[in-house]
Formats: sequence, structure tokens, C-alpha cells
Amino acid sequence: MSWIEQGAKPIDQPAQRAAQERQQQLTKPMGALGQLEQLAIRLAGMQGRVCPQLERVSIAVFAADHGVTAEGVSAYPQAVTAEMIRNFARGGAAISVAARVLGAQLRVWNLGTVVELEALTGVESRIIAPQSGNLMHAPAMTAAQLQQALDTGREAVLHTPAELFIGGEMGIGNTTAATALAAALLEQPVAELVGPGTGLDTDGMSHKCRVIEQALLRHGADRDPQGLLASLGGFEVAALTGAYLTCAQQGIPALVDGFICTVAALLACRLNPAVADWLLFSHHSAEPGYRLLRQALPSTPLLDLGLRLGEGSGAAMAVPLLRMACSLHEQMATFAEAAVSEKCS
Amino acid sequence: MSWIEQGAKPIDQPAQRAAQERQQQLTKPMGALGQLEQLAIRLAGMQGRVCPQLERVSIAVFAADHGVTAEGVSAYPQAVTAEMIRNFARGGAAISVAARVLGAQLRVWNLGTVVELEALTGVESRIIAPQSGNLMHAPAMTAAQLQQALDTGREAVLHTPAELFIGGEMGIGNTTAATALAAALLEQPVAELVGPGTGLDTDGMSHKCRVIEQALLRHGADRDPQGLLASLGGFEVAALTGAYLTCAQQGIPALVDGFICTVAALLACRLNPAVADWLLFSHHSAEPGYRLLRQALPSTPLLDLGLRLGEGSGAAMAVPLLRMACSLHEQMATFAEAAVSEKCS
Repeated sequence: MSWIEQGAKPIDQPAQRAAQERQQQLTKPMGALGQLEQLAIRLAGMQGRVCPQLERVSIAVFAADHGVTAEGVSAYPQAVTAEMIRNFARGGAAISVAARVLGAQLRVWNLGTVVELEALTGVESRIIAPQSGNLMHAPAMTAAQLQQALDTGREAVLHTPAELFIGGEMGIGNTTAATALAAALLEQPVAELVGPGTGLDTDGMSHKCRVIEQALLRHGADRDPQGLLASLGGFEVAALTGAYLTCAQQGIPALVDGFICTVAALLACRLNPAVADWLLFSHHSAEPGYRLLRQALPSTPLLDLGLRLGEGSGAAMAVPLLRMACSLHEQMATFAEAAVSEKCS
Repeated sequence: MSWIEQGAKPIDQPAQRAAQERQQQLTKPMGALGQLEQLAIRLAGMQGRVCPQLERVSIAVFAADHGVTAEGVSAYPQAVTAEMIRNFARGGAAISVAARVLGAQLRVWNLGTVVELEALTGVESRIIAPQSGNLMHAPAMTAAQLQQALDTGREAVLHTPAELFIGGEMGIGNTTAATALAAALLEQPVAELVGPGTGLDTDGMSHKCRVIEQALLRHGADRDPQGLLASLGGFEVAALTGAYLTCAQQGIPALVDGFICTVAALLACRLNPAVADWLLFSHHSAEPGYRLLRQALPSTPLLDLGLRLGEGSGAAMAVPLLRMACSLHEQMATFAEAAVSEKCS
């Protein structure tokens, strides 16, 4: 049996119930801390302790180039993927700054770039190919390449033991792949999902829409998640899918970033519905397709700030909220401890 | 001339423009960091430096009892106001925990509680009266008491020099006063604004609605902000109004908490429209009246997590986002520094 078919770790129900009871005793009206209360309770169930902790946060950014950029679907040149990997390594990208602020471990997993990269500190080279196949004309990857990408996602989670995992992505052209996957997964028209990505104008979006529609026609009605990934995915979307599966198997909460990561999260849930128990959704991406993805999500994203950068940056923005939820849950006094009167009966 | 009539400090336009230009050079598509970009730019204009800093955060919680609780408008006994002041001082309340996590200075300003309090570390005693007048039958306060409350708000801001000010409030019954003020300010029916406060049921809310409607009838159509505060306010709402006015005069950004603080912020803006330049709105309160208040706000709140606790706690939750916006703005590499290609022309 491949590791992909392994089940998810069960949620610790007694710890979750104990956390729920603790919330009811804290010196505030029940429910007054809104989503933060539910976060603390869910994290308690995931971590198997009444008071969950989020000191050790691991961020893995998966980077890859996309053959479909040949169709002119991005506002940026393909060289940017490799250039941004250098920027991650040097500490100048948004996710690099956020990781420093959070004290999180950041590691980049290079799955293949058209511009070949020198060895870089903090970057693991796991080259599958210089780029995925152009999904308008060919499968994005072979079955063997898909397995390599899924395995790298698993490796990234196992590499850095953590109390919270964040996956991120970088790859010029990857909203095209992710939108194709989302349209197939949600069985929605491409025009309802397509967006500007890193900054296409209206004409660019119309063209991107046609490219995706042709790709979907070419690859047919395959609804098997691994088949979809091989046809339409990027290496980094597949790695993210492998990473979320692994988080659920290992019992590590995964904080999901924006549009592309959420597509990978849905793929992981299609492969194993119990993965949903281990996912926290960080923010409502500004990419238009996120609105429809959201309807397929098991919970409401925490933030809605108009973010559309990727890299895992939106998830990183939500980490302080998760940590605050844990601190409030652990450190607030109970009504009894503080001698505060309870609600009138 | 009273300090209340003093103008607001002007925003530093050159610093704000320089920050806007810096944002356009950072290694991300312009706009990809959504509201965080605008936050950094606004803070640059407020602080008069291209890269704003938010290390020193001051939190002032204003507490007071309300005569209108005699009408049975709260789910909690009035003793809770004093009990929670002790809880703040001992570090067990949500805002106490949040202040520790943020490394913020927390100080409580006691404007008057029915249960008399002993001296407490971190609590400043500025007693105006044991409670405000019952606004259903009498003015909430005299002109002299209003001035005392406004002055205490000013004192709290001046007491702790900071790069960001957060006001909070505690006072059983204070959503009744704040809802009355909001209905008068917005000229909206009370039924559109009234909410559960700390946890009223449907019957309780209907009763609260009738109490507020009667209070509004009694006090008539006074639209002068100070007149409204004297008729319908609580001491802590008046203190918050004075605090926001002072922030604008001193050039200190003020991060506004939920429903009650936002009513005070609107009052401050009515007294001096330029105050709006100095306000940042932290979260969309779960109190139903916030929806209408929001339409009167100059900007969108950052968070929408179903929070309805008060104490300044919702504003505290947003501080890490503001700090992250500043760190990204200062520490991200520019396209030139990172040798990353820019958008195709």
C-alpha cells in the first residue's frame, strides 16, 4: 500500500471536549471570542492536549515552473520563479520576512525551474523536470513525476517536526493550473473561476480562460484526484497535496494559504475526506475563484484582507491569531479563579 | 479654548507618498498584499517616516458602571464591572493576556463602580461617580462629569507615550448606552441596532430596545456630540471619545476596537472630522449595530472573527497584522535589490 492510502490520525475527542469545557469557564461571555474559541478547541483536539501550543511553525514553499506559460497566461516572465527562489533564500520575499517575524522554520523545495539554480541555503533541490508539460497540449506530468511531487510534499512535512505546518507555492503560471483543477473539481465553468493571478488585465484573463477551457476539453472528464493532478497540476500543487495528506496522517495541523493551496487541500480531501479534520483555512484569497472554493470548504477562513500573493504569505499572516487563541485559552482566568460573577439565571 | 477644540495633527504627505513608492518597488505584484499595503502607507503618513514602527503599544481600558442597568438591560450582575477590574489587574482577563503576548502597556482607568474597589496595581482611580445616571429617566451625566470623563481619556493617552494607542472599555450595561448613542448619531431605528451585548436572549433584547427608545424620546433630538454624550453616554464612552481626540491632536494612530469604541470614534469624528485620519478600525464586531456603524466608517475593519467581548480585545487581536504590515514594508527586498524581473510591459 502506498503511503497515500494511509488513514488520517483521529482527532482526540476527550481533549477537544475538555477544551470546550474550559472555554465555558473563562471570564468572558461564552462565544464572545468568536472564531478564536473554536480555533483553540479544534487545535486541542488535533494536538491531544487541553491547552494547545504553536511555538514550532514549519513553512515549506514548493516552487516549480509550468509549461503552460508558453501560452502567455502570466503577466510576469517565467524567469521570475527561479529569481524568487533566490529572493526566498536571501530573506527578501514576503514569506521570508513573515517567517522571521514569526520565528518559523522556512524551507524552499525546488521541484524544477527553467532557469537552472545554483545551490542555495535553505533551498532543497528535488528537481522533477525543468517545468511541467503544457497542459493545453499534453499531460502536465507522468504518473512517476506525480509520485515524485507527492513524495516531496511528504518529505517536507517530515523534515521539520512542528506544531503547525504551512505550505506555500511559487511558480509563474500556477494560477492557470490551479484554476483548471478547481474547475474540474467543482464542476464549474472556467469563466466563474478565472482571475488575474499576479496581475493580468481583462484581455489576458479572457485568453487564460480560453487556454484552460481547451485544456479541460483535451483532458476529458477524469474526476480521479491523482488523474486530475497528472493532467492539469503543477509539481508544486501536487507536492502541496502530498503535504496535506501527510499532515493528517502524522497529526499535524495544516494552515492552508490562498487559492492554489486551497485547490491542493481540496484534492487531498478528495483522496481522503478525513484530511479535512486537520486543515485550518487562513484567508479568503482575492483571486476570484476562491469564492467558489470557499463553498466547498469545511470552515470559514480567518482573514479577508484582499491578499493574493501566494508563497504561504496569507497563512503566515494568520499565525499570530492562532497563537493568540491558544494564549487566551491557556492563560485567561476562570470565573472561579477570578471570583467574577456568572450570568444571571 | 478647551483642548477639545484643538485641531488634529496633519498627516505627513511626503512620508506617505514615499511609502507608496516603496510599496511599488517591493518584490510582489502591486496590491498583492491587499489591506496590509494600505496600512503600511497610512501608518507612514501618521508617523512621518517611510518605514513606520509599532513596538510601543499602549492599551487603556476605561471602566464605569451604568445607572441604566436598573432597567434590567444586561445578562450579568452589575458587580461584574468591579470584579473584572480586579481580573484585569491580576492578569486573568482576555485583554491582560493579549497585552502580555503583544508586549503592550496595559492600564485600567476606573471612572466609577457601584462596588467600591481597593487600590490595584495598574488601575488608576479617577472616580466621577459610582455610576452614570439612568438614561431612561435622567441625563447620564452633568456637563462637569462629561468634562472629567473626556479629560481622563486625554490623560490616559498622554500618560504612556506610544506608537499605537488602543482604547478598551468595561461596564455592565454599556451596550445600552452605546446603542442609544449610535441610534441618535446615525438617525436609525433602535431595533436596527440593538443586540445581545454580553448575552441577552430575544426577550431581553426586546426589553433593551424599548428602554433605549424611551431614553431617546426623553432626551429629544439633541445632535450635538457633547450633548448626546451627557444625555446618553457612559463615563467610559466619553473617556474613549476624549482619548481619540487626543490621539489625533498628538499624532498617535488609534486602533479602534468593537461596537462601543466605534461609537466613541464616531463621536470624536463629529467633534472634529480630521480625527478620522488617525483611526484604524480593527474588527467587525458581532454586535448587530456594528453593521450600520461600519457604513459610517472611513475604512474597512481588518478582522471579522465574530468577536464581541470589548476590553479592547478585538483591537489587540489586530496588532500583529499591523506589525506584520510594517515588517513587510521595511524588510522586503525591492525588485532591483533582489534582481527579480518586473511585470512584462
